[in-house]
Amino acid sequence: MKRLCPIFVLATLLIAQPLSNSLCLAVQNNDQPRTVEKNQKMEYAIAIHGGAGSSPAQFSQEANAMRRASMRAALKIGSEILKSGGTALDAVEKVCLLMEDDPQFNSGVGAVFNSDGSHELDASIMDGSNQACGAVAGVSRVKNPIQLARLVMTDTRHVLLAGQGAEKFAAEKGVAMVEPSYFDTEATLKAWQRFRAKSGDSSSQTDVEKIKIFNEDTGSYMGTVGCVALDKNGNLAAATSTGGLTNKKFGRIGDSPIVGAGTFADNETCAISGTGIGEQYIRHAVAYDVSAQMKYKGVSLKEAIDNNLASRLNQGDGGLIGVDHDGNIYMAFNTQGMTRAAADSSGRFEVLWDEAVNYGESTKVEK
Amino acid sequence: MKRLCPIFVLATLLIAQPLSNSLCLAVQNNDQPRTVEKNQKMEYAIAIHGGAGSSPAQFSQEANAMRRASMRAALKIGSEILKSGGTALDAVEKVCLLMEDDPQFNSGVGAVFNSDGSHELDASIMDGSNQACGAVAGVSRVKNPIQLARLVMTDTRHVLLAGQGAEKFAAEKGVAMVEPSYFDTEATLKAWQRFRAKSGDSSSQTDVEKIKIFNEDTGSYMGTVGCVALDKNGNLAAATSTGGLTNKKFGRIGDSPIVGAGTFADNETCAISGTGIGEQYIRHAVAYDVSAQMKYKGVSLKEAIDNNLASRLNQGDGGLIGVDHDGNIYMAFNTQGMTRAAADSSGRFEVLWDEAVNYGESTKVEK
Repeated sequence: MKRLCPIFVLATLLIAQPLSNSLCLAVQNNDQPRTVEKNQKMEYAIAIHGGAGSSPAQFSQEANAMRRASMRAALKIGSEILKSGGTALDAVEKVCLLMEDDPQFNSGVGAVFNSDGSHELDASIMDGSNQACGAVAGVSRVKNPIQLARLVMTDTRHVLLAGQGAEKFAAEKGVAMVEPSYFDTEATLKAWQRFRAKSGDSSSQTDVEKIKIFNEDTGSYMGTVGCVALDKNGNLAAATSTGGLTNKKFGRIGDSPIVGAGTFADNETCAISGTGIGEQYIRHAVAYDVSAQMKYKGVSLKEAIDNNLASRLNQGDGGLIGVDHDGNIYMAFNTQGMTRAAADSSGRFEVLWDEAVNYGESTKVEK
Repeated sequence: MKRLCPIFVLATLLIAQPLSNSLCLAVQNNDQPRTVEKNQKMEYAIAIHGGAGSSPAQFSQEANAMRRASMRAALKIGSEILKSGGTALDAVEKVCLLMEDDPQFNSGVGAVFNSDGSHELDASIMDGSNQACGAVAGVSRVKNPIQLARLVMTDTRHVLLAGQGAEKFAAEKGVAMVEPSYFDTEATLKAWQRFRAKSGDSSSQTDVEKIKIFNEDTGSYMGTVGCVALDKNGNLAAATSTGGLTNKKFGRIGDSPIVGAGTFADNETCAISGTGIGEQYIRHAVAYDVSAQMKYKGVSLKEAIDNNLASRLNQGDGGLIGVDHDGNIYMAFNTQGMTRAAADSSGRFEVLWDEAVNYGESTKVEK
């Protein structure tokens, strides 16, 4: 046995990798800032989603053009922050803030109606360098929930504030407050009315068929917004903001304000934002699972996201965007469509709003 | 090379195991009931915690005896349900319900006071056979939050309902409602007054030192309750119920109602309930991470819990109880103490309420 058996060498390498992961774990004491090696592939990278759900064929050409233009504007703002050396945290917050102010998306103005005919907004933000995070749920009078989520992160000892408590904190912090009717749009009102005409007050229903009725409605779209970014210092961040599901039960909290479900970031692995049927993302801890698969199984961001969309979530549940510590971007969904955009330091700058390929068979669209 | 090199054999086995995990993943389509093989080691197993925090040395002998008696009563009820062929889901709900009605624990009556001098209760429950789950957060008038959490799971399309929305649902379902003052006890009122006298209105503080002041207070105890169980059909379930942290900010939601943070169950791996500084459990998706480490790294329940307590959470953050699909029970903590109890079909039936061994160095106590 003078020459090393190639299979033996391969086997040893495969063993060594999980072992080195375990060793990393042993010294990883949380809450200490962690930065990745500076040999990251991209200097910076950013990905954005404007929600998963219907396909562009279900909207007018004009509506699709407007949505693309808004995605482009958000991508420009986010990528310029990163290009000029700004933090990933600032980039994801500013992108979500811009989209919250855009009535085309289901976050901030344009948020969907709940079963009581009002709005309850959810948002979260996470810093991958130290696992710091903040979130708000069920706010009805805070103009920009993502801004309040960041204040929960920086100015309280808590992670998640809900309802009136969150609004009391918002008032203390002097963030912009609005009347709940500020969030109304004609499109969301009509979508809510159509939903109720078709399925009645479905607030107590368990039948997922009722949700499908809504998904088949051409006006339907789970237009949650989210952003993930890697900055020049190797720090990752993620943020998500939403009005939730049309006709959701009053008081319902989805995945967007739940760290580990709809949002997650860890410099060691990736930053993730999800969009879709939030209950499924909570149940399967989807955003955290992508990171866990990368860390514990050693798979790529793409594989970890694909595993979740193909084997953990059901078809039609939603989509995910992610950026890993090297700056690799991956965006995929198992719905008919997902508005998304990506830019990085290689010069990539693109907005995607297309049909799923072979929806119903292979449901993922890679880009 | 007529004889197989022993290292090569070992290496092959180590590779084969993660590969078989990957294959399992590929066929695991969620929401389908999953049962484990019926050769589980124990016919049934159950573990309960009554919160982590102070050590028994900080309470009177009489108080400790009362707490032990309550844990024993809860363990008896839970284990008898399982012994007689009842479901894990029924066992964990009934145990939490009994403890919610016991003023010694920080759940139901006996829940701590928040910064507004009121109570906001959180609870969640999860069925490991199909990932169904339900949770409530920030309820102030529902006598038994765990009962309402189960109704969210069974009677809505949602996972998490909060505040007034959750209470409206409770009223629709006809569950027992109470005045908020029902939850008051002299002990929790005094603890809250001591906390405020020492640290002021700390609702906006970020400094964890303030929390330590509270932890050093002999009356302090994060007495969240939780239960995990394996039934004779091989199904796992987990439940957690709490009043949260003393003087928590109005509207704050901790980990107990967050599936993946404070509660998780999956027949493939384990059922988990946590207790401690909820923000840390959310940030690190602790309950789900235990399951993910078992599934993706192939480690035992004990290793996965120990990894979380030693390397992901900080010392003093809290504790975890778990039961795996074979009926192995593990309960550990990195605080000064944790009330806990365990029973299984081998005849084990014990309540533990002891000092941490070498608190400050090795912080885990195994039993």
